[in-house]
Amino acid sequence: MGFRYEIRLSGSGGQGLILMGIILAEAIGIYDGKQVAQTQSYGPEARGGSSKSEVIMSDEEIDYPKAMSLDLLLAMNQKACDEFYPDLKPEGLLIVDSTFVTQLPTLKALQIPFTRIAREKFKREVVANIIALGALSQLTPIVSLKAVESAVLARVPKGTEKLNRDALKAGMVAAKRAKKDRMKAVLTPEIPKEDLLDSY
Amino acid sequence: MGFRYEIRLSGSGGQGLILMGIILAEAIGIYDGKQVAQTQSYGPEARGGSSKSEVIMSDEEIDYPKAMSLDLLLAMNQKACDEFYPDLKPEGLLIVDSTFVTQLPTLKALQIPFTRIAREKFKREVVANIIALGALSQLTPIVSLKAVESAVLARVPKGTEKLNRDALKAGMVAAKRAKKDRMKAVLTPEIPKEDLLDSY
Repeated sequence: MGFRYEIRLSGSGGQGLILMGIILAEAIGIYDGKQVAQTQSYGPEARGGSSKSEVIMSDEEIDYPKAMSLDLLLAMNQKACDEFYPDLKPEGLLIVDSTFVTQLPTLKALQIPFTRIAREKFKREVVANIIALGALSQLTPIVSLKAVESAVLARVPKGTEKLNRDALKAGMVAAKRAKKDRMKAVLTPEIPKEDLLDSY
Repeated sequence: MGFRYEIRLSGSGGQGLILMGIILAEAIGIYDGKQVAQTQSYGPEARGGSSKSEVIMSDEEIDYPKAMSLDLLLAMNQKACDEFYPDLKPEGLLIVDSTFVTQLPTLKALQIPFTRIAREKFKREVVANIIALGALSQLTPIVSLKAVESAVLARVPKGTEKLNRDALKAGMVAAKRAKKDRMKAVLTPEIPKEDLLDSY
Protein backbone atom coordinates (compact mmCIF):
# COMPACT_ATOMS: atom_id res chain seq x y z
CA MET A 1 0.00 0.00 0.00
CA GLY A 2 1.26 3.45 -0.92
CA PHE A 3 1.38 6.73 0.96
CA ARG A 4 -1.97 8.09 2.08
CA TYR A 5 -2.66 11.29 4.04
CA GLU A 6 -6.12 12.10 5.41
CA ILE A 7 -7.37 15.53 6.43
CA ARG A 8 -10.71 16.46 7.98
CA LEU A 9 -11.83 20.10 8.21
CA SER A 10 -14.67 20.45 10.69
CA GLY A 11 -16.79 23.08 12.39
CA SER A 12 -20.03 24.94 11.77
CA GLY A 13 -21.88 25.64 8.55
CA GLY A 14 -20.88 29.11 7.38
CA GLN A 15 -17.22 28.80 8.44
CA GLY A 16 -16.25 28.12 4.82
CA LEU A 17 -14.98 24.58 5.35
CA ILE A 18 -16.26 23.24 2.03
CA LEU A 19 -14.57 25.98 0.01
CA MET A 20 -11.45 25.36 2.11
CA GLY A 21 -11.53 21.64 1.25
CA ILE A 22 -11.92 22.39 -2.45
CA ILE A 23 -9.07 24.89 -2.46
CA LEU A 24 -6.81 22.48 -0.57
CA ALA A 25 -7.70 19.61 -2.92
CA GLU A 26 -7.10 21.77 -5.98
CA ALA A 27 -3.75 22.94 -4.55
CA ILE A 28 -2.65 19.34 -4.05
CA GLY A 29 -4.27 17.79 -7.12
CA ILE A 30 -3.96 20.41 -9.82
CA TYR A 31 -1.08 22.64 -8.78
CA ASP A 32 1.08 20.03 -7.03
CA GLY A 33 -0.08 17.27 -9.41
CA LYS A 34 -0.83 14.50 -6.92
CA GLN A 35 -3.84 12.20 -6.56
CA VAL A 36 -6.49 13.68 -4.33
CA ALA A 37 -10.15 13.14 -3.47
CA GLN A 38 -12.32 15.68 -1.69
CA THR A 39 -15.62 14.78 -0.08
CA GLN A 40 -18.41 16.21 1.97
CA SER A 41 -21.20 14.22 3.49
CA TYR A 42 -24.56 15.50 4.59
CA GLY A 43 -27.00 13.71 6.80
CA PRO A 44 -29.29 14.50 9.66
CA GLU A 45 -26.40 16.23 11.48
CA ALA A 46 -26.03 18.82 8.68
CA ARG A 47 -29.40 20.24 9.67
CA GLY A 48 -27.91 21.11 13.07
CA GLY A 49 -25.42 23.40 11.38
CA SER A 50 -22.38 21.11 11.52
CA SER A 51 -20.08 20.99 8.53
CA LYS A 52 -17.19 18.77 7.56
CA SER A 53 -15.05 18.40 4.51
CA GLU A 54 -12.38 15.78 3.85
CA VAL A 55 -9.30 15.75 1.66
CA ILE A 56 -7.44 12.52 0.98
CA MET A 57 -4.11 12.55 -0.75
CA SER A 58 -2.28 9.55 -2.10
CA ASP A 59 0.52 8.60 -4.44
CA GLU A 60 -1.83 6.03 -5.98
CA GLU A 61 -5.35 6.18 -7.35
CA ILE A 62 -7.77 6.67 -4.46
CA ASP A 63 -10.27 3.84 -4.31
CA TYR A 64 -11.81 4.76 -0.99
CA PRO A 65 -12.22 8.54 -0.72
CA LYS A 66 -13.51 8.69 2.85
CA ALA A 67 -11.21 9.33 5.81
CA MET A 68 -10.69 6.37 8.12
CA SER A 69 -7.80 7.45 10.31
CA LEU A 70 -6.91 11.12 10.28
CA ASP A 71 -3.41 12.51 9.86
CA LEU A 72 -4.69 16.03 10.38
CA LEU A 73 -7.84 17.33 12.04
CA LEU A 74 -8.84 20.98 11.92
CA ALA A 75 -11.57 21.72 14.46
CA MET A 76 -13.12 25.15 14.14
CA ASN A 77 -15.51 24.66 17.08
CA GLN A 78 -15.71 22.69 20.31
CA LYS A 79 -18.33 20.23 19.10
CA ALA A 80 -16.22 19.20 16.10
CA CYS A 81 -13.15 18.86 18.31
CA ASP A 82 -14.95 16.62 20.80
CA GLU A 83 -16.63 14.53 18.12
CA PHE A 84 -13.72 13.95 15.74
CA TYR A 85 -10.65 13.83 17.99
CA PRO A 86 -11.08 10.05 18.45
CA ASP A 87 -10.64 9.64 14.64
CA LEU A 88 -7.14 11.17 14.76
CA LYS A 89 -4.12 8.84 14.55
CA PRO A 90 -2.00 8.80 17.74
CA GLU A 91 0.74 10.67 15.88
CA GLY A 92 -1.77 12.88 14.00
CA LEU A 93 -1.92 16.66 14.17
CA LEU A 94 -4.81 18.49 15.83
CA ILE A 95 -5.23 22.18 14.96
CA VAL A 96 -8.01 24.10 16.70
CA ASP A 97 -9.53 27.53 16.29
CA SER A 98 -8.85 28.73 19.84
CA THR A 99 -11.50 31.43 19.40
CA PHE A 100 -14.09 28.69 19.96
CA VAL A 101 -12.21 25.62 21.22
CA THR A 102 -11.26 26.03 24.87
CA GLN A 103 -11.20 22.45 26.12
CA LEU A 104 -8.38 20.52 24.52
CA PRO A 105 -8.36 16.72 24.36
CA THR A 106 -4.54 16.70 24.10
CA LEU A 107 -1.70 19.02 25.05
CA LYS A 108 -0.20 18.37 21.64
CA ALA A 109 -2.93 20.43 19.96
CA LEU A 110 -1.89 23.55 18.10
CA GLN A 111 -4.08 26.46 19.15
CA ILE A 112 -4.57 29.32 16.69
CA PRO A 113 -7.32 31.94 17.00
CA PHE A 114 -8.30 31.94 13.31
CA THR A 115 -11.63 33.70 13.74
CA ARG A 116 -10.22 36.29 16.16
CA ILE A 117 -7.42 37.11 13.70
CA ALA A 118 -9.99 37.42 10.92
CA ARG A 119 -12.08 39.80 13.00
CA GLU A 120 -9.30 41.90 14.47
CA LYS A 121 -6.77 42.05 11.68
CA PHE A 122 -9.08 41.97 8.66
CA LYS A 123 -12.49 43.04 10.05
CA ARG A 124 -13.89 40.15 7.97
CA GLU A 125 -14.75 36.96 9.83
CA VAL A 126 -15.25 35.26 6.48
CA VAL A 127 -11.48 34.98 5.88
CA ALA A 128 -10.93 32.72 8.91
CA ASN A 129 -10.88 29.72 6.56
CA ILE A 130 -8.16 31.26 4.38
CA ILE A 131 -6.09 32.09 7.48
CA ALA A 132 -6.50 28.45 8.52
CA LEU A 133 -5.37 27.35 5.04
CA GLY A 134 -2.23 29.44 5.43
CA ALA A 135 -1.55 27.78 8.78
CA LEU A 136 -2.14 24.28 7.36
CA SER A 137 0.22 24.86 4.47
CA GLN A 138 2.86 25.99 6.97
CA LEU A 139 2.31 22.99 9.24
CA THR A 140 2.06 20.07 6.81
CA PRO A 141 4.59 18.87 4.26
CA ILE A 142 1.91 17.55 1.90
CA VAL A 143 1.20 20.77 0.02
CA SER A 144 3.38 23.65 -1.15
CA LEU A 145 2.72 27.25 -0.17
CA LYS A 146 2.88 28.23 -3.83
CA ALA A 147 0.21 25.69 -4.81
CA VAL A 148 -2.11 26.87 -2.02
CA GLU A 149 -1.70 30.49 -3.04
CA SER A 150 -2.45 29.67 -6.71
CA ALA A 151 -5.51 27.62 -5.74
CA VAL A 152 -6.84 30.36 -3.43
CA LEU A 153 -6.45 33.04 -6.07
CA ALA A 154 -8.25 30.87 -8.65
CA ARG A 155 -11.30 30.36 -6.37
CA VAL A 156 -11.89 33.63 -4.51
CA PRO A 157 -14.00 36.45 -5.96
CA LYS A 158 -12.24 38.98 -8.19
CA GLY A 159 -11.14 42.05 -6.27
CA THR A 160 -10.41 40.09 -3.07
CA GLU A 161 -6.99 38.78 -4.13
CA LYS A 162 -4.96 41.03 -1.82
CA LEU A 163 -7.21 40.36 1.17
CA ASN A 164 -6.89 36.63 0.65
CA ARG A 165 -3.14 36.70 0.07
CA ASP A 166 -2.72 38.69 3.29
CA ALA A 167 -5.00 36.24 5.13
CA LEU A 168 -2.86 33.30 3.94
CA LYS A 169 0.28 35.04 5.20
CA ALA A 170 -1.33 35.85 8.55
CA GLY A 171 -2.12 32.15 8.89
CA MET A 172 1.47 31.14 8.20
CA VAL A 173 2.80 33.62 10.76
CA ALA A 174 0.24 32.49 13.35
CA ALA A 175 1.20 28.85 12.75
CA LYS A 176 4.87 29.57 13.42
CA ARG A 177 3.95 31.40 16.61
CA ALA A 178 1.67 28.58 17.77
CA LYS A 179 4.48 26.06 17.34
CA LYS A 180 6.84 28.28 19.35
CA ASP A 181 4.25 28.78 22.09
CA ARG A 182 3.83 25.05 22.39
CA MET A 183 7.57 24.58 22.66
CA LYS A 184 7.77 27.25 25.36
CA ALA A 185 5.08 25.45 27.30
CA VAL A 186 7.53 22.53 27.57
CA LEU A 187 9.55 24.64 29.96
CA THR A 188 6.70 25.03 32.40
CA PRO A 189 6.82 22.19 34.93
CA GLU A 190 3.05 21.55 35.01
CA ILE A 191 2.99 19.97 31.58
CA PRO A 192 4.75 16.63 31.03
CA LYS A 193 7.37 17.05 28.29
CA GLU A 194 6.60 13.82 26.48
CA ASP A 195 3.05 15.00 25.83
CA LEU A 196 4.35 18.00 23.99
CA LEU A 197 7.29 16.74 22.03
CA ASP A 198 6.46 13.40 20.54
CA SER A 199 4.42 14.65 17.63
CA TYR A 200 7.23 16.73 16.09
CA MET B 1 -29.21 -3.00 0.54
CA GLY B 2 -31.16 0.27 0.50
CA PHE B 3 -31.91 2.77 -2.24
CA ARG B 4 -28.87 4.41 -3.81
CA TYR B 5 -28.78 7.00 -6.61
CA GLU B 6 -25.53 8.07 -8.26
CA ILE B 7 -24.97 11.26 -10.25
CA ARG B 8 -21.84 12.37 -12.11
CA LEU B 9 -21.48 15.93 -13.40
CA SER B 10 -18.70 16.13 -15.96
CA GLY B 11 -17.11 18.54 -18.39
CA SER B 12 -14.32 21.10 -18.43
CA GLY B 13 -12.73 23.04 -15.60
CA GLY B 14 -14.44 26.44 -15.43
CA GLN B 15 -17.91 25.11 -16.25
CA GLY B 16 -18.85 25.29 -12.56
CA LEU B 17 -19.39 21.57 -12.02
CA ILE B 18 -17.95 21.52 -8.50
CA LEU B 19 -20.23 24.31 -7.29
CA MET B 20 -23.09 22.52 -9.03
CA GLY B 21 -22.28 19.30 -7.15
CA ILE B 22 -22.16 21.13 -3.83
CA ILE B 23 -25.46 22.90 -4.43
CA LEU B 24 -27.13 19.66 -5.49
CA ALA B 25 -25.75 17.81 -2.46
CA GLU B 26 -26.86 20.57 -0.12
CA ALA B 27 -30.32 20.59 -1.70
CA ILE B 28 -30.66 16.85 -1.13
CA GLY B 29 -28.85 16.60 2.21
CA ILE B 30 -29.76 19.76 4.06
CA TYR B 31 -32.99 20.98 2.51
CA ASP B 32 -34.52 17.61 1.63
CA GLY B 33 -32.90 15.91 4.66
CA LYS B 34 -31.55 12.76 3.04
CA GLN B 35 -28.13 11.08 3.27
CA VAL B 36 -25.78 12.40 0.63
CA ALA B 37 -22.07 12.38 -0.17
CA GLN B 38 -20.42 14.70 -2.66
CA THR B 39 -16.94 14.07 -4.05
CA GLN B 40 -14.44 15.39 -6.51
CA SER B 41 -11.25 13.65 -7.47
CA TYR B 42 -8.20 15.22 -8.99
CA GLY B 43 -5.37 13.40 -10.67
CA PRO B 44 -3.18 13.78 -13.71
CA GLU B 45 -6.31 14.32 -15.86
CA ALA B 46 -7.28 17.46 -13.90
CA ARG B 47 -4.24 19.20 -15.38
CA GLY B 48 -5.76 18.72 -18.83
CA GLY B 49 -8.73 20.85 -17.78
CA SER B 50 -11.25 18.07 -17.17
CA SER B 51 -13.56 18.34 -14.20
CA LYS B 52 -15.97 15.97 -12.56
CA SER B 53 -18.08 16.05 -9.46
CA GLU B 54 -20.18 13.24 -8.00
CA VAL B 55 -23.27 13.21 -5.80
CA ILE B 56 -24.45 9.99 -4.17
CA MET B 57 -27.77 9.84 -2.43
CA SER B 58 -28.99 7.03 -0.21
CA ASP B 59 -31.59 6.23 2.40
CA GLU B 60 -28.80 4.72 4.52
CA GLU B 61 -25.43 5.99 5.68
CA ILE B 62 -23.09 6.12 2.69
CA ASP B 63 -20.05 3.93 3.27
CA TYR B 64 -18.65 4.16 -0.21
CA PRO B 65 -19.02 7.72 -1.57
CA LYS B 66 -17.67 7.11 -5.06
CA ALA B 67 -19.96 6.41 -8.01
CA MET B 68 -19.81 2.87 -9.37
CA SER B 69 -22.80 2.67 -11.69
CA LEU B 70 -24.41 5.94 -12.68
CA ASP B 71 -28.14 6.65 -12.56
CA LEU B 72 -27.58 10.07 -14.11
CA LEU B 73 -24.71 11.44 -16.16
CA LEU B 74 -24.48 15.09 -17.12
CA ALA B 75 -21.88 15.61 -19.84
CA MET B 76 -21.05 19.25 -20.57
CA ASN B 77 -18.53 18.42 -23.32
CA GLN B 78 -17.85 15.69 -25.85
CA LYS B 79 -14.82 14.26 -24.07
CA ALA B 80 -16.76 13.74 -20.84
CA CYS B 81 -19.63 12.17 -22.76
CA ASP B 82 -17.35 9.72 -24.56
CA GLU B 83 -15.36 8.86 -21.45
CA PHE B 84 -18.16 8.40 -18.93
CA TYR B 85 -21.07 7.04 -20.95
CA PRO B 86 -19.88 3.45 -20.32
CA ASP B 87 -20.33 4.06 -16.54
CA LEU B 88 -24.06 4.76 -16.99
CA LYS B 89 -26.55 2.03 -16.04
CA PRO B 90 -28.53 0.65 -19.01
CA GLU B 91 -31.65 2.38 -17.68
CA GLY B 92 -29.69 5.49 -16.59
CA LEU B 93 -30.31 9.02 -17.83
CA LEU B 94 -27.80 10.85 -20.04
CA ILE B 95 -28.16 14.64 -20.26
CA VAL B 96 -25.78 16.49 -22.55
CA ASP B 97 -24.99 20.14 -23.20
CA SER B 98 -25.77 20.11 -26.91
CA THR B 99 -23.75 23.30 -27.35
CA PHE B 100 -20.65 21.10 -27.17
CA VAL B 101 -21.84 17.49 -27.45
CA THR B 102 -22.72 16.66 -31.03
CA GLN B 103 -22.02 12.92 -31.22
CA LEU B 104 -24.43 11.01 -29.04
CA PRO B 105 -23.69 7.49 -27.80
CA THR B 106 -27.43 6.77 -27.44
CA LEU B 107 -30.66 8.08 -28.94
CA LYS B 108 -32.09 8.15 -25.44
CA ALA B 109 -29.90 11.12 -24.48
CA LEU B 110 -31.60 14.35 -23.57
CA GLN B 111 -30.03 17.23 -25.47
CA ILE B 112 -30.20 20.70 -23.93
CA PRO B 113 -28.01 23.62 -25.06
CA PHE B 114 -27.16 24.87 -21.55
CA THR B 115 -24.25 27.06 -22.56
CA ARG B 116 -26.05 28.52 -25.56
CA ILE B 117 -29.05 29.42 -23.38
CA ALA B 118 -26.67 31.03 -20.86
CA ARG B 119 -25.04 33.09 -23.59
CA GLU B 120 -28.15 34.08 -25.53
CA LYS B 121 -30.74 34.51 -22.80
CA PHE B 122 -28.53 35.74 -19.95
CA LYS B 123 -25.38 37.04 -21.71
CA ARG B 124 -23.49 35.20 -18.96
CA GLU B 125 -21.95 31.86 -19.84
CA VAL B 126 -21.22 31.31 -16.16
CA VAL B 127 -24.87 30.47 -15.38
CA ALA B 128 -24.86 27.38 -17.64
CA ASN B 129 -24.37 25.23 -14.53
CA ILE B 130 -27.42 26.74 -12.79
CA ILE B 131 -29.51 26.23 -15.93
CA ALA B 132 -28.35 22.59 -15.90
CA LEU B 133 -29.35 22.33 -12.22
CA GLY B 134 -32.83 23.55 -13.10
CA ALA B 135 -33.07 20.89 -15.81
CA LEU B 136 -31.83 18.15 -13.47
CA SER B 137 -34.33 19.05 -10.80
CA GLN B 138 -37.07 18.85 -13.44
CA LEU B 139 -35.87 15.49 -14.76
CA THR B 140 -35.10 13.50 -11.60
CA PRO B 141 -37.40 12.59 -8.76
CA ILE B 142 -34.58 12.58 -6.19
CA VAL B 143 -34.60 16.27 -5.33
CA SER B 144 -37.34 18.84 -4.97
CA LEU B 145 -37.41 22.08 -6.94
CA LYS B 146 -37.85 24.01 -3.73
CA ALA B 147 -34.76 22.45 -2.14
CA VAL B 148 -32.66 23.22 -5.22
CA GLU B 149 -33.81 26.82 -5.24
CA SER B 150 -33.01 27.26 -1.53
CA ALA B 151 -29.58 25.68 -1.97
CA VAL B 152 -28.76 27.84 -5.01
CA LEU B 153 -29.75 31.05 -3.23
CA ALA B 154 -27.63 30.10 -0.19
CA ARG B 155 -24.48 29.59 -2.31
CA VAL B 156 -24.50 32.23 -5.05
CA PRO B 157 -23.04 35.72 -4.54
CA LYS B 158 -25.33 38.37 -3.07
CA GLY B 159 -26.97 40.49 -5.75
CA THR B 160 -27.20 37.58 -8.23
CA GLU B 161 -30.31 35.98 -6.74
CA LYS B 162 -32.68 37.02 -9.53
CA LEU B 163 -30.27 36.00 -12.28
CA ASN B 164 -29.85 32.58 -10.69
CA ARG B 165 -33.56 32.07 -10.05
CA ASP B 166 -34.27 32.93 -13.70
CA ALA B 167 -31.50 30.56 -14.83
CA LEU B 168 -33.04 27.72 -12.79
CA LYS B 169 -36.41 28.36 -14.39
CA ALA B 170 -34.91 28.49 -17.89
CA GLY B 171 -33.38 25.08 -17.18
CA MET B 172 -36.72 23.61 -16.13
CA VAL B 173 -38.44 24.93 -19.26
CA ALA B 174 -35.63 23.66 -21.48
CA ALA B 175 -35.84 20.22 -19.85
CA LYS B 176 -39.56 19.95 -20.59
CA ARG B 177 -38.93 20.96 -24.20
CA ALA B 178 -36.09 18.45 -24.58
CA LYS B 179 -38.34 15.63 -23.38
CA LYS B 180 -41.04 16.66 -25.87
CA ASP B 181 -38.49 16.88 -28.70
CA ARG B 182 -37.33 13.38 -27.94
CA MET B 183 -40.89 12.11 -27.97
CA LYS B 184 -41.52 13.81 -31.32
CA ALA B 185 -38.46 12.10 -32.73
CA VAL B 186 -40.23 8.80 -32.09
CA LEU B 187 -42.56 9.67 -34.95
CA THR B 188 -39.77 9.88 -37.47
CA PRO B 189 -39.24 6.46 -39.02
CA GLU B 190 -35.42 6.62 -39.01
CA ILE B 191 -35.18 6.19 -35.28
CA PRO B 192 -36.21 2.88 -33.73
CA LYS B 193 -38.97 3.54 -31.19
CA GLU B 194 -37.63 1.19 -28.56
CA ASP B 195 -34.42 3.22 -28.36
CA LEU B 196 -36.40 6.29 -27.44
CA LEU B 197 -39.06 5.04 -25.15
CA ASP B 198 -37.61 2.50 -22.81
CA SER B 199 -36.04 4.92 -20.38
CA TYR B 200 -39.27 6.75 -19.52
